[in-house]
Amino acid sequence: MHDLYAGIDIGGTKIAVVLADATGRVLARGAGGSPAADGGEAMADAAAGLVTGLAAQYRLVISAVGVGAAGVIDHETGTIRAASEMFHGWAGFGLSAALEARLGVPVRVENDVNAFLLGELEWGAAGGDDVLGVMLGTGVGGAFVLDGSLRHGPHGAAGEIGHTPGYSHLRCTCGQRGHLETVASGTSLALRYTERTGLPVEGAREVAERARGGDGDAQAVFAAAGRALTLACAGAAGLLDIGIAVIGGGVAQAWDLLEPAVTATLATDSPISGVPLRIVPGSLGGDAVALGAASAARSHLHTPVL
Amino acid sequence: MHDLYAGIDIGGTKIAVVLADATGRVLARGAGGSPAADGGEAMADAAAGLVTGLAAQYRLVISAVGVGAAGVIDHETGTIRAASEMFHGWAGFGLSAALEARLGVPVRVENDVNAFLLGELEWGAAGGDDVLGVMLGTGVGGAFVLDGSLRHGPHGAAGEIGHTPGYSHLRCTCGQRGHLETVASGTSLALRYTERTGLPVEGAREVAERARGGDGDAQAVFAAAGRALTLACAGAAGLLDIGIAVIGGGVAQAWDLLEPAVTATLATDSPISGVPLRIVPGSLGGDAVALGAASAARSHLHTPVL
Repeated sequence: MHDLYAGIDIGGTKIAVVLADATGRVLARGAGGSPAADGGEAMADAAAGLVTGLAAQYRLVISAVGVGAAGVIDHETGTIRAASEMFHGWAGFGLSAALEARLGVPVRVENDVNAFLLGELEWGAAGGDDVLGVMLGTGVGGAFVLDGSLRHGPHGAAGEIGHTPGYSHLRCTCGQRGHLETVASGTSLALRYTERTGLPVEGAREVAERARGGDGDAQAVFAAAGRALTLACAGAAGLLDIGIAVIGGGVAQAWDLLEPAVTATLATDSPISGVPLRIVPGSLGGDAVALGAASAARSHLHTPVL
Repeated sequence: MHDLYAGIDIGGTKIAVVLADATGRVLARGAGGSPAADGGEAMADAAAGLVTGLAAQYRLVISAVGVGAAGVIDHETGTIRAASEMFHGWAGFGLSAALEARLGVPVRVENDVNAFLLGELEWGAAGGDDVLGVMLGTGVGGAFVLDGSLRHGPHGAAGEIGHTPGYSHLRCTCGQRGHLETVASGTSLALRYTERTGLPVEGAREVAERARGGDGDAQAVFAAAGRALTLACAGAAGLLDIGIAVIGGGVAQAWDLLEPAVTATLATDSPISGVPLRIVPGSLGGDAVALGAASAARSHLHTPVL
């Protein structure tokens, strides 16, 4: 009898669920809307419903559940410490307890970027004991592993990289200026393209399509994102003495458009420590956060209580 | 019988030595020129000679020696892995073994910024288990402690902060552009002042004197340094989830000139995690590196060999 795990990726617009075995093989996938405006209990209902429905549909029994969620997470208690305004009533919510009450199995909650990095480390593109992870999504988030262990930090806030300055003169979603997120998030890629051209776009995916179609403005916006991402990774890698960064999130799906600027910037702005830095796209795609959450659930289930 | 320790601060122009007890009380101080151009053996001769002379003069017996030295250090073997060109024949030199052969006691070698942070943590301004240290000297260096332990990193290069970009458009000593060091090192403070005014100055100390005398250009150069330092500390503190940074090195002696820009920048560019950041000057002054090295020597002497 092999244990199976559910991994839940809770975002602002979507909740995605995978059921996976201990080798990271995905046995089932599901997704539904995210009731981010309706508070923590509604979110727990929606997430638990997806897991229960998927398990019933495929006749699978789940041993533990992992969640990757946006915001600052107290991973010891599974409580949300802080989150963006788009998640109403999320800060302070005991997500782990709410899901354990609904599902009857142990639940582990991690920040979504932490979960992404755990997934890529265990089953994806990022090998090694010292690894940086950056997710380019609606915003930009970071996470890192030192000596083989994910660093949460004393306040659960370790890995912040999207709101570091010096990458532009633009105002950030947080109100400050020049942050990495102003050029490298999906939201910003669309905004920057529209500023350059006056043309409205649906989002970064449409900018990517235009870039691949030969649109020089769209290509320039991705090049600026790739350069800023690389400078931020080089800075963080130098501080942490890390030789590999793995990049995920929706924008990383356009790695073909980021990669030329990443390579060019690594050539001119390499870490002066002499430690070579590799920057690679994640290989788990849209499953990374959910699979990493499942991995965290598995590790937690098999960690002896001291 | 209480153990006494020698701490050696090896710089490019000066070697400074303290003899201290286990409480950090300095019993004797000495200094001499640094034969940086003459290779590792000459440096070991000079450093050992200072320790031996000082111990003889004060009739003190030393139990262990700690060294804080510029460059990337393999602290396990006490070997210099990499160093700036001003230190001839320094890379690859077995400094710990060379000093143990001359002094007959255990020798521990740390990077100088690591030693500074250890000194301030143990006997100075920086309390806590998670602390960032930045030294503003000829260049700019960094170090950090997580969970109470100094992080060396897998390549011994952890803490690099001076060569992170986004702080100017100026060329750095390393050949790249925009690094923190281009505005916040002592060398750069003098260069930037001369660029603004056309007036040659001896160094950052002279710029500080002019600033205190009301020279607006000199004040502006210090304000730019304080702002860049603060942005770099906020970025590193956000990544590491750290709430305190302690600043040392010669430029930090002019804290009165840096502090207004530090305070103003913290008010506008605070870490978005909500973890408050304090940036404080070190309190050990010119003894910090040597005292931190002595602290490392003491810790090492009392660490059981596994």
